[in-house]
Amino acid sequence: MNHFADRLWDAVRRKGNPLCVGLDPRWESLPDEVRRRHGGDSLDAVAAAFEEFCLRVLDLVAPLVAVVKPQSAFFELCGPAGMLALQRVLRRARELGLITILDSKRGDIASTAAAYAEAALGGVDIGGRHFDVWDADAVTVNPYLGDDAVRPFLKAARRAGRGVFVLVRTSNEGARLFQDLQVTQAGRPVFEVVGETVRAWSREHLGRSGYGDVGAVVGATYPAELSRLRQLMPEVPFLVPGFGAQGGRADDVLPALNADGLGAVINSSRGVLYPCPPSTLDWEAQVLQAAQSAIASLTAKP
Amino acid sequence: MNHFADRLWDAVRRKGNPLCVGLDPRWESLPDEVRRRHGGDSLDAVAAAFEEFCLRVLDLVAPLVAVVKPQSAFFELCGPAGMLALQRVLRRARELGLITILDSKRGDIASTAAAYAEAALGGVDIGGRHFDVWDADAVTVNPYLGDDAVRPFLKAARRAGRGVFVLVRTSNEGARLFQDLQVTQAGRPVFEVVGETVRAWSREHLGRSGYGDVGAVVGATYPAELSRLRQLMPEVPFLVPGFGAQGGRADDVLPALNADGLGAVINSSRGVLYPCPPSTLDWEAQVLQAAQSAIASLTAKP
Repeated sequence: MNHFADRLWDAVRRKGNPLCVGLDPRWESLPDEVRRRHGGDSLDAVAAAFEEFCLRVLDLVAPLVAVVKPQSAFFELCGPAGMLALQRVLRRARELGLITILDSKRGDIASTAAAYAEAALGGVDIGGRHFDVWDADAVTVNPYLGDDAVRPFLKAARRAGRGVFVLVRTSNEGARLFQDLQVTQAGRPVFEVVGETVRAWSREHLGRSGYGDVGAVVGATYPAELSRLRQLMPEVPFLVPGFGAQGGRADDVLPALNADGLGAVINSSRGVLYPCPPSTLDWEAQVLQAAQSAIASLTAKP
Repeated sequence: MNHFADRLWDAVRRKGNPLCVGLDPRWESLPDEVRRRHGGDSLDAVAAAFEEFCLRVLDLVAPLVAVVKPQSAFFELCGPAGMLALQRVLRRARELGLITILDSKRGDIASTAAAYAEAALGGVDIGGRHFDVWDADAVTVNPYLGDDAVRPFLKAARRAGRGVFVLVRTSNEGARLFQDLQVTQAGRPVFEVVGETVRAWSREHLGRSGYGDVGAVVGATYPAELSRLRQLMPEVPFLVPGFGAQGGRADDVLPALNADGLGAVINSSRGVLYPCPPSTLDWEAQVLQAAQSAIASLTAKP
């Protein structure tokens, strides 16, 4: 079973829920205990605090969820030390059997895109040697540069049984500015044209589960668009951000799932990571409860 | 003079040409001499070779050109060690008085975009302390996520006299797929709508030079679109990739410039970095000559 979607749904089925925990380490939100231990005198110290926090969260949520999504931006904020922390967080997540989605929203052309893709997914070949870099199961990709910019990601993913999630409809308010432009040729908005293209890419390589290895990022904050895209691209795995702290409710995201409970992973970052003020002593119990509560709302029978 | 465009054109004017040298370190193209010294047994060694090569190129081209553009993807390919090399390359470029454009094509929403933006440009504030991270003069940004995704980059740029280059029309063949979709409301393609929006952002903060601090990436490989965009957005600094190895000729890119020779920086990466086979012993002389030749073709009187 080396098709990304097959691995993804197998993991989701075993855990019994579609929750993805987003790993967004933010200094101002970290537990006081963790901040105090590392101080904040250097970016190395901040990165070490980010790493400790994420590793402890991984240990807490690994028995409950199938998927985690480290947000590259917060690690990059700490420079090279942050990237080392990111690498270690991804490694630990893999060791715990979690599916990892590196949320870095990369996009470039030709051999530059290949550099991003190989680093994110199956590793790079340099001078006849093979090196793993971030070694994630999937990576998020920005489609604006077009087909030949996304292809290197598909190639790197398929060589190693990994996946790609292409931004189709993002969860932010400003998403409408360009994504909702109505297109003359298609009689529909840009994001639907992107969605159709993502579907075509995904159908090139379906797994036994009937799903492809090219997924779509579709925000929970636009429930009507989410339902419509689910219909338009049935074989495409969805990654749905915006659930929880960003305002998307369980009712809003459930249309992303098919009848069998598969078809989408629903991400919550802040809602799970920071359910209590930094001064809270039993923050780990609170994180666990927040994850359990998010899972309960996603798996409640109507 | 702390407006990005003023600093940019002042530097270009002093050097007398609009060439930007792209720093795209590729293992298979590096001079044998550099590869042999570092070996390629680890990503740390590859990163060290990338760093040495880029630093030596910087020393060669700094007397000739005003602007350099490190491509983040090739550094990220080496993991944390690559990011350290990137940081050092950016630092040396600044020390040499060069304007630096970090070509990382980032894009995300809200506080995540702010994390990318602050790291790339004026630095981050964590726990009351200020840290520089990549500390570039400008960064490339992907517009697909919309206004509220680009705003944090404008904010970080304006706080520190830095700039942003938004992808409008990329230089790859596949650019047409989404960027050329005709938009009903505007009677024009998506990339022109993006261009108009970039112009509006740029006009919010014009420098004494009459140019804004939000630029546009417009590929040299589409000369007709380049001319049209130059007319549509006169106050917007252009970053023009695709010149040289990607196929754009001097005739194709000159319409990006205004009559005074300003208005655009023209990037060449491979054409300057790799004018000769890796075995060439006097590669530094060849790089110097390639840069001089690119400059001559861009500044030839018709």
